[in-house]
This record gives sequence, C-alpha cells and structure tokens, in this order.
Amino acid sequence: MQQKIKKIGVMTSGGDAPGMNAAIRSVVRTCAFHNIECYGIYRGYEGMIEGDFVKMNARSVKGIINKGGTVLKTARSKAFRTKAGRAKAFEKLKSEGIDAYVVIGGDGSFTGAMVFNEEYNFPVIGIPGTIDNDIYGTTHTLGYDTTLNTVVDAIDKIRDTASSHNRLFFIEVMGRDVGHIALNTGVGAGAEEILIPEEDLGLDRLLESLRRSKQSGKSSSIVVVAEGDKIGKNVFELADYVEENMTEYEVRVSVLGHMQRGGSPSCFDRVLASRMGVKAVESLLEGKSNYMVGLKNDVMDLTPLNKAIKGRSKINMELIRVSDIMTV
Amino acid sequence: MQQKIKKIGVMTSGGDAPGMNAAIRSVVRTCAFHNIECYGIYRGYEGMIEGDFVKMNARSVKGIINKGGTVLKTARSKAFRTKAGRAKAFEKLKSEGIDAYVVIGGDGSFTGAMVFNEEYNFPVIGIPGTIDNDIYGTTHTLGYDTTLNTVVDAIDKIRDTASSHNRLFFIEVMGRDVGHIALNTGVGAGAEEILIPEEDLGLDRLLESLRRSKQSGKSSSIVVVAEGDKIGKNVFELADYVEENMTEYEVRVSVLGHMQRGGSPSCFDRVLASRMGVKAVESLLEGKSNYMVGLKNDVMDLTPLNKAIKGRSKINMELIRVSDIMTV
Amino acid sequence: MQQKIKKIGVMTSGGDAPGMNAAIRSVVRTCAFHNIECYGIYRGYEGMIEGDFVKMNARSVKGIINKGGTVLKTARSKAFRTKAGRAKAFEKLKSEGIDAYVVIGGDGSFTGAMVFNEEYNFPVIGIPGTIDNDIYGTTHTLGYDTTLNTVVDAIDKIRDTASSHNRLFFIEVMGRDVGHIALNTGVGAGAEEILIPEEDLGLDRLLESLRRSKQSGKSSSIVVVAEGDKIGKNVFELADYVEENMTEYEVRVSVLGHMQRGGSPSCFDRVLASRMGVKAVESLLEGKSNYMVGLKNDVMDLTPLNKAIKGRSKINMELIRVSDIMTV
Amino acid sequence: MQQKIKKIGVMTSGGDAPGMNAAIRSVVRTCAFHNIECYGIYRGYEGMIEGDFVKMNARSVKGIINKGGTVLKTARSKAFRTKAGRAKAFEKLKSEGIDAYVVIGGDGSFTGAMVFNEEYNFPVIGIPGTIDNDIYGTTHTLGYDTTLNTVVDAIDKIRDTASSHNRLFFIEVMGRDVGHIALNTGVGAGAEEILIPEEDLGLDRLLESLRRSKQSGKSSSIVVVAEGDKIGKNVFELADYVEENMTEYEVRVSVLGHMQRGGSPSCFDRVLASRMGVKAVESLLEGKSNYMVGLKNDVMDLTPLNKAIKGRSKINMELIRVSDIMTV
Repeated sequence: MQQKIKKIGVMTSGGDAPGMNAAIRSVVRTCAFHNIECYGIYRGYEGMIEGDFVKMNARSVKGIINKGGTVLKTARSKAFRTKAGRAKAFEKLKSEGIDAYVVIGGDGSFTGAMVFNEEYNFPVIGIPGTIDNDIYGTTHTLGYDTTLNTVVDAIDKIRDTASSHNRLFFIEVMGRDVGHIALNTGVGAGAEEILIPEEDLGLDRLLESLRRSKQSGKSSSIVVVAEGDKIGKNVFELADYVEENMTEYEVRVSVLGHMQRGGSPSCFDRVLASRMGVKAVESLLEGKSNYMVGLKNDVMDLTPLNKAIKGRSKINMELIRVSDIMTV
Repeated sequence: MQQKIKKIGVMTSGGDAPGMNAAIRSVVRTCAFHNIECYGIYRGYEGMIEGDFVKMNARSVKGIINKGGTVLKTARSKAFRTKAGRAKAFEKLKSEGIDAYVVIGGDGSFTGAMVFNEEYNFPVIGIPGTIDNDIYGTTHTLGYDTTLNTVVDAIDKIRDTASSHNRLFFIEVMGRDVGHIALNTGVGAGAEEILIPEEDLGLDRLLESLRRSKQSGKSSSIVVVAEGDKIGKNVFELADYVEENMTEYEVRVSVLGHMQRGGSPSCFDRVLASRMGVKAVESLLEGKSNYMVGLKNDVMDLTPLNKAIKGRSKINMELIRVSDIMTV
Repeated sequence: MQQKIKKIGVMTSGGDAPGMNAAIRSVVRTCAFHNIECYGIYRGYEGMIEGDFVKMNARSVKGIINKGGTVLKTARSKAFRTKAGRAKAFEKLKSEGIDAYVVIGGDGSFTGAMVFNEEYNFPVIGIPGTIDNDIYGTTHTLGYDTTLNTVVDAIDKIRDTASSHNRLFFIEVMGRDVGHIALNTGVGAGAEEILIPEEDLGLDRLLESLRRSKQSGKSSSIVVVAEGDKIGKNVFELADYVEENMTEYEVRVSVLGHMQRGGSPSCFDRVLASRMGVKAVESLLEGKSNYMVGLKNDVMDLTPLNKAIKGRSKINMELIRVSDIMTV
Repeated sequence: MQQKIKKIGVMTSGGDAPGMNAAIRSVVRTCAFHNIECYGIYRGYEGMIEGDFVKMNARSVKGIINKGGTVLKTARSKAFRTKAGRAKAFEKLKSEGIDAYVVIGGDGSFTGAMVFNEEYNFPVIGIPGTIDNDIYGTTHTLGYDTTLNTVVDAIDKIRDTASSHNRLFFIEVMGRDVGHIALNTGVGAGAEEILIPEEDLGLDRLLESLRRSKQSGKSSSIVVVAEGDKIGKNVFELADYVEENMTEYEVRVSVLGHMQRGGSPSCFDRVLASRMGVKAVESLLEGKSNYMVGLKNDVMDLTPLNKAIKGRSKINMELIRVSDIMTV
C-alpha cells in the first residue's frame, strides 16, 4: 500500500517547450497549497542521477509564468537508460526523501519514467511538454499553441518579402513524426501547399498544385514543409527541384529552426500548464501513478503512460480538406 | 422546398473581432471552390438595407488572413430592428439575386438573423465572431484566443512596472456578461485575484486576499477585473476603496480598452475561422439554415441559432480553483 | 583630490523604464571588467537611506538585458529630500565602503544626486532612464524608443477596430511636459491630429481638421493626445466636446496607461543602455562626477547634471510639419 | 534650366525592407500636399521599362504605413543595365508625362539612377531603403531599426532554448558587407562573441573567448555571425570546427534568414520614412536631383548619389569595445 506522500520532485526533460516554467510553477504552488514539500530536479534524469536537487517554495517560482525555456534546465540522459544510472537516481531520491515526482517532457521522458516505475515502484505523473503535439491522450501538449503563433508570425514576415518579390518560399517547420505544426501553421498562414509526414503528396502533384496557383493569379507562394515530410528530398533539394521544373518562380528556402521552441508562452499554454500542474500533484496525492495528465474535451484527464507512448496523436483530416479549399 | 443556392452573401456585424477577415476569406474561397457566387455585404445589416454589396472572388480576399478588424466593416443597425428596415434588406438581397448569407458576429447579430429568417425564410448560417466567448454552442468564439494573448501581453508589461514599484494594479479587461477573458488572462498572467460577473467575491474577501498575498511575501500584485464584475464599484472606485483600506499598497488602475479587440489573429483563430467558413458555406449548400457553426470537442458542429442565443456559455469552475491554488 | 574608487553603487530611481536592467547589467559588468566592486542599491534613494545594498558580480546580472522593469526596484523618496535623510544615506554608503554611484533615472533623481553631491562631495554619474525623452543633453533617454514601439503597436490594434466601425478615437499617451511620445507615435501610427503640450492647437482648429479629414474621404480617424496637452480639457471631456460638435463621428477614448512603461527593451535601448553603463563607470574611474551620460550625434557624451536638469529637450518642429503633410 | 515638375514617379527597387510602404505613402501624400500628380512604378526598374505605372492619390496609400514589404513590389532588373532597357524606360516615363522620380532602395538602385540621370538628365532623388544600413550619408537606412528588433527577438527565443540545454548557438544574421546588424544585435542580445566582415577575429581567438566564457561560469552561449564574416568558414563549418575543438559545448546553428526582412516597421522606421518622403519630394520640387536623402544628427540631409555609393558606412568601433566589456 502506498504511503502518504510528503516530498514531491519536479523536473523537465527532453526538448524544452514554452510553458514548462508555468508548469513547474504550478507543481510547486500546488505542493505548497497542500503543504507538501517540493524539490526541483535539475537537468531531467541527469540531475536525478547526480542528486542535483533544490528545495522550492511558492516564492521560488515567482515571475516565471511568462518565461520561455525552463529554469530547471533540461537534458537527454544516456545514463538513465542504464540499470546502474537508474539505481543511482533511486538512491539520490531516497536519500533526499523525495517520494514521488512529476516529469514534464515528451515520450522519451515518459518511457524513462515507466521503466523506473517498474523497477522501483516510484510514483510518477507525466505532463506532456513538447511543441510537436505528438502525444496520445491530450488534444494539446504544452508549448504547441505558442509554437503555432511563433511560426505564423515568422511566416507572415516572410510573406512580406515573398509577395514583394513574387517569390516562392519553402519554409521548414518543426515536426519530425507528425505534421500538426505544419498543417496548422500552413492553414493559418495561408500556405499554398503543406507537406507533412502523414501524407505523401508526391513531387508531381506538388508541381501541379504550384502551377495551378500561379495560373489562378497568385504572384507569390508559400509552401510549409514539416521536417519529417515524406516527399523524399530535404527542403533545399526540394527547392532546387521545383526551381528547375518551374521557371515561373524564383525559389527561396527558410528553415525556421530553434526559435520555434522559445518565447513567452501564449495565454492558452500558461493556463494549460497551470491546470496540468494542479492535476499532476493532486493525482499523486490521491495515490495515482504512471499516468499522464492531458486535456480532453476541455477537461483534465489521465492516460496511462504506456498508452500515451504507444498511442498515436492523429492529425485532423478535416484540416487537410480546409487547406485544399482555401487554396482554390 | 429549398431551391439550389447560387449566390451567397457574407457580412460582419456587431463588435469586430480578430479572425473576422480570416472567416470572410474562408467563406469567399469556399464559395469559389463550389462555384457559387459570393457577395460581400458592407457594415452588417446597415449595408444589407442599403444594398451596399460587392462581388468577391478568391483573389479579393488575398492578404487578409492575418489582418485584424474586418475589411467588410461592421456596424450595429437600428434600422434592421424595424419591419421596414428588414423589408428593405430583403428587397436589396432579392434584386441582387443573393439567396443565402453567412453572418459573422455575436448574439445581437444572430437575433437579427433569426427574426429575418422567420419573416422571409431567408437561409442563414452564423459564425460566432466575438472576443467575449459568450456564445453557447462553441467552446471558442472567433477572436477570443487572440484577445487572451493581447491581454496577457499587456498585463506582462504592466507587471514589469508593478513589480519595479511594489504596486497593486487593478486591470480592467473586456467581458460585460461573462468572465472568460478575465478568468483566463488572470490565471495566465498570474494575477493575485480575479473579479468576474459570475462570482461576487465581496470587498471583504478581496481585502483579505490582498493582505494574505502581501504577508506571503509578494511585493506587488495584479487584480484582473472584468468590465461586468459584480463587486458593485467601478474599477476606479474599487482602487480608491482598497487604497483607503490597505495602506501597505500604492494602488494604480489600468483600463485596457479597445486595443483588446485588434491585432493580427492567433494561429488558432485563423484556423478556426477557416474551418468555420467552410462549414458555414457547405451547410447552406446542404440546405441547412438558422444554425450557428461551432467548435465542440475539436469538431465542427451546428447549433440552432435560438439555442446559441438563449444558452449560456459557462466559465470553467475548475479554473477558479486553479487560480486560488496558484496564489497560495 | 579624488581618491581611487574601489566600490561603485548602482541604482534605479523614479519611474521605471525599459532598458534600466540592461543599464544595471552594463554598470555591473564594466565594474567587473575594471576589477571594481559593485553594489546594487535597492529602491533608489529609499534603499540608499536604509542601506539596502547587495553585492553584485558579472553573473548576478545574467539574463536581464531583455527584461522590462528594474531588478533593483525603484521608488520616489521623500526622505531623501530632507537633510536628515541624506545624512543617513551618506552614513550607509560610507559604512559599506561605497565611494561613488551611478543613478539611472530622470530629472528628479538627478536633482537629488546634485544636492547630495553638494553636501557630501559624493561622486555620481547619471544615466537618463525615462520613457518621456524629456532630458536635455541626450537625443534619446533610455526606454523612449521601446515605448514608441509599444505605443504604435497599441494604436495599430485600435485602428483595426476604428476602421472596422468608422470611428474617431482619442488615444492618450504618456508625456506630461513634453510631446515626444505623442508626436512620434502620432506620425508613426498615421494619426490625423496630434495634441502636445508644446502647441495649443485650439478646439476650433481641431474640429476643422477632423472635418477636413472626413471630407477627404477618411472614414475613421485617430487623434493622439499627450497627457500634458494644452487644449484645456482632459481626453474624455475632449471626446465629448467633439462628439457634440461633430455628429459625423462615433467617438471613443482609449487611455493607454501603464503598459507603455513595460515590456522587453528594443535593440536600440539595449545597446544604448550598454554604452551608457560603460561610459558612466569609466567616467567615475576617470575622476569625473556630477555629469549625465548622453547620446549626441551617435557618440557618448557628458553633460553637467545641472544643465541636464535646467535644459529643455525640444520637440522636432520638422515633425509637426511632416505630420501636417501626411494628413493631407 | 529645369522645368516645373508636374508628375512624380515613386518606386521600390532591390531587396525589400520594412518602412518602404511608409516611404511610398509619404512620397504620395507629399505630392498631394503640393498638388503634384504621383505615379507608382511597379517592380522597380522592371516596371519602369514595361510602363507598369499606377496613378496614386492620398487615399491610395491608406492603411499601409504599418505594413512590411512594398505594395509597389520590387525587383532587380537586368534589362535596366542595358542601354536599350534604359531607353525604353525613358520612353515610358515620357509618354506618361512623368518628369521626375523617387527611388527607394540600396546602392544598386542608386547606381541605376545615376546612370539613367547621366544619359537622360532625368531628375531623381534616392531614399535609402535597405535593412543592412550599408549606405554612406545617413546614420540609418530605412528598415534597419526594424530588423534589429526582429533579430534580437529571435535571438531571445533561441536563448530560451540555449540556456535550458546549456548549449552554444551560432546564429547567422544578415549583412554581407557590413556588420551593423550583427554588431548591434549581438550587443543587444548579450552575445558572447560577434563575428563581422570588418574584423577577422580568427578561429583561435574565438575558441579562447568561448573557453573563457565557459570558465567564467556561463553554461550557454550565443555567437552572432554576420553572413559576410571573414573567419573563412560558413556558419555550419564553423560550428563543426568549434564542436570538434571544444567538447564542453553541445553546438547548434540557426540561420535566421528571410524573416529578418519582413514585419511591421518600428516607430522609428515609420517616422524616418515619413520624413524622408517629404524631403525627397520637396528636394525634387526645389530643382535638386541626383541626391540621396539621409538622416544626419537627427536632421534631414542630402548626399550626392555618387558619394552615397562610393562612401563607406562604418561600424561603430566603440560598440566592439562595449561588447568585449559586456562579456567579461
């Protein structure tokens, strides 16, 4: 039987995402609200192994709700993939008296949490923090909404120059396995074509679509490309291919890169983070473990970690149709 | 029996909201996609009465997806509340051959649409465009998400000066009947207290809460106040009252005002607008009328206009609790 | 003869302004560069009197260059206006071993510095930090450029709604004694009329100008009003007056308020702050005192504090003419 | 002797820059103010050769002061480099009755203007519109200030992720021949090192500087690299080199790319554009030609086009020193 939890750890792990600080703040304050001690664990599982902990109270997290990145830092830990590493981590947690933790991260981080839980029955709740929105069990991961706004803002700027010069731009956005960012920002920025991992448009159809766009009177065009698209060429090769096959356009490439991860979180992400932190801590206090908190139909929900990892976050097929109609 | 629709009108009505242009664009392009003629109606029902129409095609709406306000302008029409006004409007629509329309607006605009439909059986679909999120039948109205970001951005700026001076700020945000904006931005900006129309906190509890906040070590505080809060004093009187009763704080007031309505729509609002425009036009083409399109569980949905108007968009009580915990 | 300086204090005083943190950072790091100890003084002269000091090194100011407000807090001190208060301040500085200081603030702060210097011959250099740009001896005060951008961004948003509704907006911006903010943002946001303290346009000419604007085909209008304008009515009375006398317009008022002070500083303000901090510290080290650093013809310059206070920062008359031409 | 000017053309040429629309607006309205006809020339010299002109009046330029890009589009014209091309252009201008023009662009555009003026004695005034600030005769080119803000905003975002992961980032910014953007944004964003075309830091000193930075306790670092830096490697090779030679850091690269050109212009650029447009048109009306308008000591000034082209816009050496001190 589970003992009463007295000290909760909180950490961020994997790639950083806007809203992680807001989630840390929420975890810390919910602990304070319930008179539970709270410890920050630096640099994810790395810091857990090294015992790099800091005691936090309600005031330690002041002024961070609107900051990008993570004050607890984050890392990907190779050591935690080894039995020896996890054994060390357990020792460190025990010696500090931490008896449960909240991990904010993506599926790599959750996999680590599950393995650790199997071995040591160590209570854990996950908060999905990743800009990619690629986690099953929540309609929105933390940071995703902010990234959408960062990306459309950048594409809006590029469109200024695209339309001034009558150019065709290929813009690569994040999303190795799923096309959520590309699909939504493509629709949101009025892109002529959107290339995502879930669909293989094919080079012929891409050329055809761009030609139709040109004929319909458009002088400039934007193609949004997810990192992980299936078209078989990287974005620079793709641009070269199109320029060779369509002399009508002057083609340019822009890879938005790491700025997509940063910035002050949107109101949505700050609120979501606040809700998730409360739910995570209170779930631990209710004796639950091995779950991920998520947003479903605007309600806080729990999904077993193994389902969250194995499940698939599917893109909205309706949006693909909307995109087609918008580029009439 | 309904005849086949050949010409669809589109207009914006009531207060403007970010995303209205994206919705106009979507309506126009969906018409083009289905080879239906589309007419813009200027200044809402005013322009309908005056026959102030403009033929639009896919290219007419280029470059507006990211613009605030509405290119079709908007107005509140007294004339349309009279039988004579509506008769004129019907004549104008008929003489132009418009046989259905999409109205983008709030409940005032939908009430007009229903009355008009009763009298002339004129097909109409509504798109909820208002920053207040006060419409039943959709989890999000168009413009609401953008306004949340505009407001937290403004509060973040005010917090810079509040915390530099150890001040208490009362910040009035929009929301006459519902507290969605205040509640969400209050949580998102880390406000110490949030005053909304749905709850009467009472002056005593407000003072108590601010005192507790001071004692807990906070040197500055933000109170977010919805326009329509129930505390019985306007925001300036409220600030005076608190300053008289709490000498610990230097108190300031900021009324965010009309800037909350403007600005480039967020990615979410642009995508929502695009989806709603498609759904609105295709619903008309399927012979439906007197419905509002809405977002429910991330799916496009229809709600009868009379239910949308009479229903109540409720605030999320969970968020009030989250707010309380966050200000521990 | 001046002794070698070993410990320098730095503080912010008066109203906060974006860029103050960047200036603090620069002062602290320039001290570190020259192997001088540096102490932060909290809450301006208040903290000086209370001996509220903190030792700072190069790492203490990391991550603040892009933050609004001031990490050292700021205040207006009544106690420092008394002989007794200044005596206490001197004691506190002496006992800490601080032998010179940099004050970042406006003319009130500089007046305090001069009086203190007369009484105790205490070395001081001023950095002009105020959004109003009302200090003689520098073409730009710290924070001014950022505020211009914050204000035009807000007016752009208001214009979205103004032009959607064909409204006339009176927008009050900061500037009690000088019209720099109003004049520059008025030109920058394309205002139809700009009311500043330096000019009394008169109500008749205002009405005439708005009528001409209406006749020239403009459907909406923005009037930017400096807090300290000379037209003899506050902005709400002014709006009422115009609405009574011009039935053509629906009139609205927006007071931008405290958000004008906040936000992340512009690149210009960050660079200016960095330059000013270096110049301030190195001037002290060269044995100079009682000067303000300033920007003149893009070069760092020194102005005696008494001239900075008594001098007048004049608005650019060319800009008034440009504004008139732009509203043709 | 010069005849009285009755029709003025205005065009944008070369790379686009924020503020070009504000300058077009100013030229058009200054013409209207002086009762001179004004024609927009599309796509720079390309449109001049093709006679792609549009008559503009004060209302044609409404709502563009805050838009990025250029409504007149821009291009680089090969045809205009030929005698035949210029002959055609002259014919087109003559047949439309245009007797002078304002060209908004960079030194390529000004070179074209000079050659054309030599051959046809065709009155022209240049407005320096380029984000690079690489033109002699003005302290600021149009668009430069906006780009600085766009770049520091992007670097701030990247720093969020850099400091969350303890990474070293190489960020490439625009600036082929001059380092203004890199130097100012490097200081403004608190970069540890700045690589510009004007200085060859050398790989050894770069490594040494990064090592010192690491030893001083910094866990993450940003190096800003101008496109045209002299270090002899492109930014990706540079990152590889550093990663091989400094195992302490995980290294990442971000090329900011075309988004640096877009976006709504800053208040400074809008005001500068407005002033430059007035000065350009009024200079033509005073019979002047072959000059560029510029900002010197905050006053509008004229520089002969040949001096503007041949002269060198020098970086501020003081800033390099400031940057060194800031990274202590």
